[in-house]
Amino acid sequence: MSKEVKAWGAISPEKTEPITITRRAPDDEDVGIDIKFAGICHSDIHTVRSEWGKITYPLVVGHEIAGVVSAVGKNVTKFKIGDHVGVGCMVNSCRQCTNCQDGEEQYCYSGAVMTYNGKDPKDGTITQGGYSQYVVVDQAFVLRVPESVPLDKAAPLMCAGITLYSPLHHWKAGPGKRVGIIGFGGLGHMGVKLAKALGCEVTVFSQTYSKREIGLQLGADNYIATSEPNVFSALTHKFDLIINTVSASIPLELYLSCLRRDGSLVQVGAPEKPLVISPFSLDAQRVGLHGSMIGGIAETQQMLDFCGEKQIFPEIERIEASYINEAYDRVLKSQVKFRFVIDISTM
Amino acid sequence: MSKEVKAWGAISPEKTEPITITRRAPDDEDVGIDIKFAGICHSDIHTVRSEWGKITYPLVVGHEIAGVVSAVGKNVTKFKIGDHVGVGCMVNSCRQCTNCQDGEEQYCYSGAVMTYNGKDPKDGTITQGGYSQYVVVDQAFVLRVPESVPLDKAAPLMCAGITLYSPLHHWKAGPGKRVGIIGFGGLGHMGVKLAKALGCEVTVFSQTYSKREIGLQLGADNYIATSEPNVFSALTHKFDLIINTVSASIPLELYLSCLRRDGSLVQVGAPEKPLVISPFSLDAQRVGLHGSMIGGIAETQQMLDFCGEKQIFPEIERIEASYINEAYDRVLKSQVKFRFVIDISTM
Repeated sequence: MSKEVKAWGAISPEKTEPITITRRAPDDEDVGIDIKFAGICHSDIHTVRSEWGKITYPLVVGHEIAGVVSAVGKNVTKFKIGDHVGVGCMVNSCRQCTNCQDGEEQYCYSGAVMTYNGKDPKDGTITQGGYSQYVVVDQAFVLRVPESVPLDKAAPLMCAGITLYSPLHHWKAGPGKRVGIIGFGGLGHMGVKLAKALGCEVTVFSQTYSKREIGLQLGADNYIATSEPNVFSALTHKFDLIINTVSASIPLELYLSCLRRDGSLVQVGAPEKPLVISPFSLDAQRVGLHGSMIGGIAETQQMLDFCGEKQIFPEIERIEASYINEAYDRVLKSQVKFRFVIDISTM
Repeated sequence: MSKEVKAWGAISPEKTEPITITRRAPDDEDVGIDIKFAGICHSDIHTVRSEWGKITYPLVVGHEIAGVVSAVGKNVTKFKIGDHVGVGCMVNSCRQCTNCQDGEEQYCYSGAVMTYNGKDPKDGTITQGGYSQYVVVDQAFVLRVPESVPLDKAAPLMCAGITLYSPLHHWKAGPGKRVGIIGFGGLGHMGVKLAKALGCEVTVFSQTYSKREIGLQLGADNYIATSEPNVFSALTHKFDLIINTVSASIPLELYLSCLRRDGSLVQVGAPEKPLVISPFSLDAQRVGLHGSMIGGIAETQQMLDFCGEKQIFPEIERIEASYINEAYDRVLKSQVKFRFVIDISTM
């Protein structure tokens, strides 16, 4: 049976407020999830502000979802009622293309179905995200949250966690590798924790030293304030991998020059402006400028299990639903340490 | 004994004319080479026109050198008088850094010594290139030209050949791989021949169909005129590797969208203007934008041996030395099929 549930929806680019939405009845493959926590991601803000294209209001965003299974379709074998689960940025994909077959559903050649503002192939509606009490998702896109991971801290792993874990994993970050993380916010601090737990030497590139102490506490071996003079000259050819979590335009050439031969600079932030680089900064050491987008379902499960085993969790600030608009303002001002998580029981 | 030899030197950004230069006496490790042929590379023109930084005139350019050994130092074991040899873009490197140790001397962390406009560590002079009768080069940077490769056609392999072979080799182009080559000039036509010989399916991206017939003759499976409408839409996610040989600014995003997941767009041309791309064009399929610069010495030897075995040679137009200035004009107008080679006996 379909279900009317409370949610907080964007009713305009500027405002999110309580609304009611309808969730479809679970089909045979679906899992119904009572959402307990939802993280706030910068993408939510880009989307509701129509910065990534026009949207239809109201829209419920949120793709860092953690909750408890409350219904299962008859073919659901992976989960049972009461299980702790998570849902990230996507809720379906074609499952036929090479990328889906390879477990890289996020790169589905037909386009993965995003958790919000996507078109749900099961009922044709616009998908609505996690700032709500309940969601229905095909079991193939539901993740198991290990018992050792608290649900509130599991939420940001579903996007911020996998967004950093996937490039670290794909580019084989591990012992002996030097990894740089540009930006020390919601994404960046997860990058530091994950890279450290994977055995890398980790350097943070932040604008100032204001978060240096906590950066070192969370595992950074080095913390560079890029506004200081001449910090880059000593870093030439020192890094195997640098992950850029910053959405603003930054001088990428300086970071490309920090890479060893065949090193990679991976963009996971989503700047609105184009990237501009000199071709010489690429061919000097055959370095690569890459993008990376979340991770596949199997890889996300691997990341959750790894975080449970290593006890790696995001630093979060739990908020009530009524605080969402203010939280957005603080995210835009970088005034959050390090991820807002909405307590859905306050909805 | 040092030697005065004839050369053609750039005396200003606009003019190259006959001059005399002095070549040092070969030391114990050096090989003296009577140059028979020198290819004309677009880089020669960029350099003499001071487009890549100020230079000291006169300067002799040319880094596609083929000739015959006429002198050997007492420790030279790799070559004997009479051997057919080649010299490419570099004549020395530190030989100590990781990159040199890995046989990737072109990425020497101390900077490889370029064949012209470099600083020769042996005598402190500015290196002078191949538009001359004779050159002295350390045996470690001299290549063996197989008997099955005519010397005039060997010359362009030393830069144009290795510049395309190295990325094809590095990114594992081979049977089952779809390779695109952007631009069908001196570099591009070697890309087509080499990729085809390596077993790839090869597509040329050229502005018009004017060279289509010869493109297909030389081995292209497909020849796309990018000025035609909608040619890119059918090519989405079709390519494993695309090599851009074009120096002008082109819409890289269109080519990035032609790559499969984890595909690479490799820049080997050297545009004067920065590259501008949307971050979304990178993260959509985790594709990479790379640079690549010539190749290592061992890899260059491998390429020469491969070209000898497969009988893959550049298409050349042999010219007299007095034609260099006119040849430059024709290179800039793309009126060459496909590489000018100076017959040094006309000097």
